[in-house]
Amino acid sequence: MNTHPQTAPAARPEADGTPDALGTSAARARSAELEQLIAEDPGRFRVLTGDRPTGRLHLGHYFGTLHNRVRLQNLGVELFVIIADYQVLTDRDVADDLKGHVEELILDHLAIGVDPERSTIFTHSAVPALNQLMLPFLSLVSVAELNRNPTVKDEIAHSRQSAVSGLMFTYPVHQAADILFCKANLVPVGQDQLPHLEITRTIARRFNDRYGQGGPVLPRPEALLSNAPLLLGTDGTKMSKSRGNAITLAAGADETARLLKGAKTDSERHITYDPAGRPEVASLLLLAALCQDRTPEEVADDIGAAGAAALKKTVTEAVNEYLAPIRARRAEYARDRGQLRRILREGNERANAVADATLAEVRAAMNGDY
Amino acid sequence: MNTHPQTAPAARPEADGTPDALGTSAARARSAELEQLIAEDPGRFRVLTGDRPTGRLHLGHYFGTLHNRVRLQNLGVELFVIIADYQVLTDRDVADDLKGHVEELILDHLAIGVDPERSTIFTHSAVPALNQLMLPFLSLVSVAELNRNPTVKDEIAHSRQSAVSGLMFTYPVHQAADILFCKANLVPVGQDQLPHLEITRTIARRFNDRYGQGGPVLPRPEALLSNAPLLLGTDGTKMSKSRGNAITLAAGADETARLLKGAKTDSERHITYDPAGRPEVASLLLLAALCQDRTPEEVADDIGAAGAAALKKTVTEAVNEYLAPIRARRAEYARDRGQLRRILREGNERANAVADATLAEVRAAMNGDY
Repeated sequence: MNTHPQTAPAARPEADGTPDALGTSAARARSAELEQLIAEDPGRFRVLTGDRPTGRLHLGHYFGTLHNRVRLQNLGVELFVIIADYQVLTDRDVADDLKGHVEELILDHLAIGVDPERSTIFTHSAVPALNQLMLPFLSLVSVAELNRNPTVKDEIAHSRQSAVSGLMFTYPVHQAADILFCKANLVPVGQDQLPHLEITRTIARRFNDRYGQGGPVLPRPEALLSNAPLLLGTDGTKMSKSRGNAITLAAGADETARLLKGAKTDSERHITYDPAGRPEVASLLLLAALCQDRTPEEVADDIGAAGAAALKKTVTEAVNEYLAPIRARRAEYARDRGQLRRILREGNERANAVADATLAEVRAAMNGDY
Repeated sequence: MNTHPQTAPAARPEADGTPDALGTSAARARSAELEQLIAEDPGRFRVLTGDRPTGRLHLGHYFGTLHNRVRLQNLGVELFVIIADYQVLTDRDVADDLKGHVEELILDHLAIGVDPERSTIFTHSAVPALNQLMLPFLSLVSVAELNRNPTVKDEIAHSRQSAVSGLMFTYPVHQAADILFCKANLVPVGQDQLPHLEITRTIARRFNDRYGQGGPVLPRPEALLSNAPLLLGTDGTKMSKSRGNAITLAAGADETARLLKGAKTDSERHITYDPAGRPEVASLLLLAALCQDRTPEEVADDIGAAGAAALKKTVTEAVNEYLAPIRARRAEYARDRGQLRRILREGNERANAVADATLAEVRAAMNGDY
């Protein structure tokens, strides 16, 4: 085939005066402004967020990001939740029951209050037009830029270049397609994800510079930095499904009690909130506080000298009470798999309609609408 | 988003005993065997071939590859012709009139005898499922392997890494999707394209190893090496549209005569076929010979001592006679743009049906059919 590709464009100066990336403190200040703007006019915003379907979500996910998604939805922001099933292709554990993992992830979102009437839950693999954006987007970034991705740099530093797949290497471009296909202008992220969003903003800017003669085609989405509380697993290390130290949303009240009963604490009987000095105790206090909408100091004061057993009892009750309606809703949705499939089908239809419209605009801007 | 991708698979040994790549001489021997198999049972073969829509095709393209496409079609091989419109995204000259370039390319193919009833002409951008194969395929190659692509190595050696776009870097994977979406098992290539086909074969093998529990899903396409004659442009350098030294299929008889009248020859009056010593004269003799289905030596003998003017007259007549029916057919198709659009639409529909079927198989093999 005579199909030799072209070289990458040279980097260009900013077109609209705002940088592609903000430092963390500037990003934090901007996020505070964005919260104000959301409160004033939520209809201006469309959020893209999502997860890889790797297993049931746990309380770390919930207080880290899921809760924020529902909050934004309930403020009136339009929410697109992507189930990134194409990103788990090489994950053997998941791939053997991908459908099951996808369903669990949908159930978790429905359980916490994502409303399929207002919000769009969809699977990446079901939206072909989204993936077609990869082609123009890949032409707008250089290999040198992709090499700067911290995840790729880490992987090459810790193992070797041959361990980095083409899928991982192009990940920031996939993420740009995930975000821009629906013209999301707001992306809730943790601090470590700012560099990824930077590439999305760069791609949107370059696309508009190059093809946007009739005005910008793509938004330059902004980061909404979340103040995710750091919850430890019951063994005092990072909460993670694979470590068996995580309380999942789907867990029963008894399982929750059992896990928390075995939680690591310390030998100091008087309970105080001291994240630096007593991280395990602090994490349990924080968890109870988040569930009860109190401060961890208040929770600690209530327990006082009653010791770790009392702390665990308090946390167990707080978690189980907080999760009870979520778990009930989850069980209800889980009983009706037909409904679950219908919700996904409708979400995929909405996502496809939006993606097709964006792709048509992109093609028209590129003179490719023949 | 919590969507961190996975690492690449380790390279695996061959599953079916045949190597992903053959040396050139082995590839040439295998091509001779393949020609025999095609003659015996052409229905076993499906060919994927195509071009970037960068301008009208010329006689170098025609005797280099186009003629071979029609030959294979007429032997009974199923032919898919991809118009690689996504690969010219960054080519400003083309992008401003992409539709026009695509139409010219279709016209050229129809003119030379590609039969839209038997063969499928389609545009890359119109087949979403083809692009979706990129995701699984990217997961099956490592960055180290992509770095070994000679085109990328050349580009990095001659300019710099920042000049290599993500599109160019992932080009061999795009080509794998182009070929495998329709399960083509035969790809006519020049010698320099053997490394590209090697990656396609590697991807097909790894996909089958990993996901083909129920049997291989994807074919491992073979290279059909063509003996492309080397035709020079009228100035004695490489024939190329941009050098103004090429006779296009669409050129008129007068334009052809004018171009050939100005062709570079030498001062030796007696015409002989001596490619090493008299490359410009040899190229003209070869061109006449190709058009008249004779040997260049026979053409030279007929001209003898009549000199360069007689040579040019002979070549002009031979080319114009040979191209007359092709040009007539081209003009006829060019008059009916509606028909042209219908041919492309039908080709795209066929390509989409095939792509959707392959993607469904791929998804089922990967447990992604939910």
